[in-house]
Amino acid sequence: MSSSSPRLTARYFIETPNDLAKAAATLAGEQSSGTFVEVPGETAELKQRFAARVESIKPLDTSPTPAIPTGRPTPPNAVYRRAEVAVSWSLENFGHNLPTLVSTVQGNLYELAQFSGLKLIDLDFPAEFSARFRGPQFGIPGCRRLTNVPAGRPLIGTIIKPSIGMSPDTTAELVRTLVEAGIDFIKDDELMANPPHSPFDARVDAIMRVINAHADRTGKKVMYAFNVSDEIDAMQRHYEKIVRSGGTCAMISLNSVGLSASKKICDLGQLAIHGHRNGWGMLNRHPLLGIEYPAYQKLWRLAGVDQLHVNGIANKFWESDDSVVRSIQSCLAAEPLNKPLLPVVSSGQWGGQAPETWRRTQTTDLLYMAGGGIMAHPNGPAAGVHALREWWEAAVSGLTYDQCLAQRPNLALSAQKFAK
Amino acid sequence: MSSSSPRLTARYFIETPNDLAKAAATLAGEQSSGTFVEVPGETAELKQRFAARVESIKPLDTSPTPAIPTGRPTPPNAVYRRAEVAVSWSLENFGHNLPTLVSTVQGNLYELAQFSGLKLIDLDFPAEFSARFRGPQFGIPGCRRLTNVPAGRPLIGTIIKPSIGMSPDTTAELVRTLVEAGIDFIKDDELMANPPHSPFDARVDAIMRVINAHADRTGKKVMYAFNVSDEIDAMQRHYEKIVRSGGTCAMISLNSVGLSASKKICDLGQLAIHGHRNGWGMLNRHPLLGIEYPAYQKLWRLAGVDQLHVNGIANKFWESDDSVVRSIQSCLAAEPLNKPLLPVVSSGQWGGQAPETWRRTQTTDLLYMAGGGIMAHPNGPAAGVHALREWWEAAVSGLTYDQCLAQRPNLALSAQKFAK
Repeated sequence: MSSSSPRLTARYFIETPNDLAKAAATLAGEQSSGTFVEVPGETAELKQRFAARVESIKPLDTSPTPAIPTGRPTPPNAVYRRAEVAVSWSLENFGHNLPTLVSTVQGNLYELAQFSGLKLIDLDFPAEFSARFRGPQFGIPGCRRLTNVPAGRPLIGTIIKPSIGMSPDTTAELVRTLVEAGIDFIKDDELMANPPHSPFDARVDAIMRVINAHADRTGKKVMYAFNVSDEIDAMQRHYEKIVRSGGTCAMISLNSVGLSASKKICDLGQLAIHGHRNGWGMLNRHPLLGIEYPAYQKLWRLAGVDQLHVNGIANKFWESDDSVVRSIQSCLAAEPLNKPLLPVVSSGQWGGQAPETWRRTQTTDLLYMAGGGIMAHPNGPAAGVHALREWWEAAVSGLTYDQCLAQRPNLALSAQKFAK
Repeated sequence: MSSSSPRLTARYFIETPNDLAKAAATLAGEQSSGTFVEVPGETAELKQRFAARVESIKPLDTSPTPAIPTGRPTPPNAVYRRAEVAVSWSLENFGHNLPTLVSTVQGNLYELAQFSGLKLIDLDFPAEFSARFRGPQFGIPGCRRLTNVPAGRPLIGTIIKPSIGMSPDTTAELVRTLVEAGIDFIKDDELMANPPHSPFDARVDAIMRVINAHADRTGKKVMYAFNVSDEIDAMQRHYEKIVRSGGTCAMISLNSVGLSASKKICDLGQLAIHGHRNGWGMLNRHPLLGIEYPAYQKLWRLAGVDQLHVNGIANKFWESDDSVVRSIQSCLAAEPLNKPLLPVVSSGQWGGQAPETWRRTQTTDLLYMAGGGIMAHPNGPAAGVHALREWWEAAVSGLTYDQCLAQRPNLALSAQKFAK
């Protein structure tokens, strides 16, 4: 590689009390040269070859107050300037080392006093970089194949609730009800991994007995995402247990486990990987601090995750529908690797959000999850699954929410129970 | 374990437009039961045994505006109430699974619309839990032993700059200058791991040749923290390379690598682990979002890190001195495990901060790092190292900054160059 080697480009929202060009140059300097004085050995040739480069600065609005503390007094008549900036690095700076790439685009720069706001919006990987990663081993077509769900409708899924406390046998009984109800996908809650009251292996045994028997009878193997999140050796043991037991999916709490261990599990390549983003609010909720979903999903796509949470329309959390729609679209975008992720729609979903989800995304390439929306259906879980399927069928046929209720009498019951 | 099993307690700052007690109950509910409607199977017995419990609520001030967006309109005359709340969980909920503990205390709760601010302040681990972790294998006494630095002064360290671009041989030449100057510790920059222009193994060979020869000659082995951050298999290979080459330390970019892979490397137990916190600003910089250092360092202490960055007095970043002092104190606190971490003081340090660092912390159990402060000293790196040692000697003898300059003529030169 040389000074003309391909470059990674990162886009940021920034806010600064300083001149925009100077602030952007500080960012680039900190993340490639990185000291506060010139030092011997830092030759012009090295700088030219390895320095990060400010590619563009698009000024936006200004604010009289800083979005996040700068540790410096706010002068009278201060102006905090906002901009979208693009910065690029030569691939030569980090090779094909994903954690070090993260340290480069998301490292110390969040601590620079020159910024009163900094958020990574998106990453543009050159093909030379992404080609070194396999990415999702199963992706959308693989998850459809494993669950026997044809194109044209979402996979319908649910979460085992209560989140914590049930024994393997109680869980398996619930799984029996759900698979008989026609569910496509079931997952452990992220709070449930390998606790004393539901040891991982015993839970896999109890659940896969039910799922395998149902598959033998019907030809449909329900995908169960067992939460393998743990230390790396335990994760590998748990993964192997799932494989040996005929399971098809492992779930990882990505932010808690971290990038290097998650990629190791993805690399094993025998199970679809359900990526849970719990902890995401900490990384994203402030408008001028952290990371936006389009950048986030690309990192996990390169790591090899197949399914990634996107929240849902009219969710129980703080996130806007616009943000959820953008997350779905970024999962479904071709690049990097021409391997879209399966967006996992979840949080407060009960079927009534299907018309709006369809209207705004025009896709059924979704894993559509309801917890209470299935389990607490007035006529029981089977009715809950059927209602979700019918909501989606009606939505895809072009009906609005009100038209669904008017034309599909079955849907009224779920609306009475769940609509707010 | 039973319903009376030991409990983990987490303390949070919260801000909410709702009743404080109701908001705290929502937090506890989401992170143990976790659905928006009552579901069959959630018996009173299960709830009693596994429910998180609100232990205390200490009301603080209020605000007319939310600290972070709630996704809901701000009503006229809104009052956003702030409080410190303590919530506890039975250990039975997660066993000894550190990533799942993180998902429990730092998971979806950051996304709850009921909170307009939420920050994890501290964690209190019952001894039954922490006893399952070895924690720092070397810690402060081990790092002193490995570097031959007696109690009474800090370890003096530096970072190889420029951050990126130097060849192994150029780096080794710089290391030669530094070890001959009497440095105790040197580290790779976090941007430098295993790039094409400085392959990891070649860098270790070149550097350890210098360090080992110096150790053979003088009996002092300088500790070099090689940045092993990478995918897990590469990290293990790099770790073994350091061990084989007679090195004593590996550096991990903790936030980029993640908890499970970092712990795996710590568990190997043959090298001191230098924990770099790059990315920390994203997790901490907002006063009402993320995590505070006392909680953060406990998680990494359990994972087995020996040295952890704390920034420095009068640093080049945004952080206040108060916050830096608190971080140093939390590293040095006995619990958990009665194994303090060695605080790594870094960022814009040049020695002039020694009197204030000493005044406020009264400790020399520090790894005191200067980059430019050593390398850019007017009389060269050796004079830079000597100046740092002398600043500390003078500080510990009780001299103020001005007294240091008046009584120690050697220190004037560094003050002329670096003092702002």
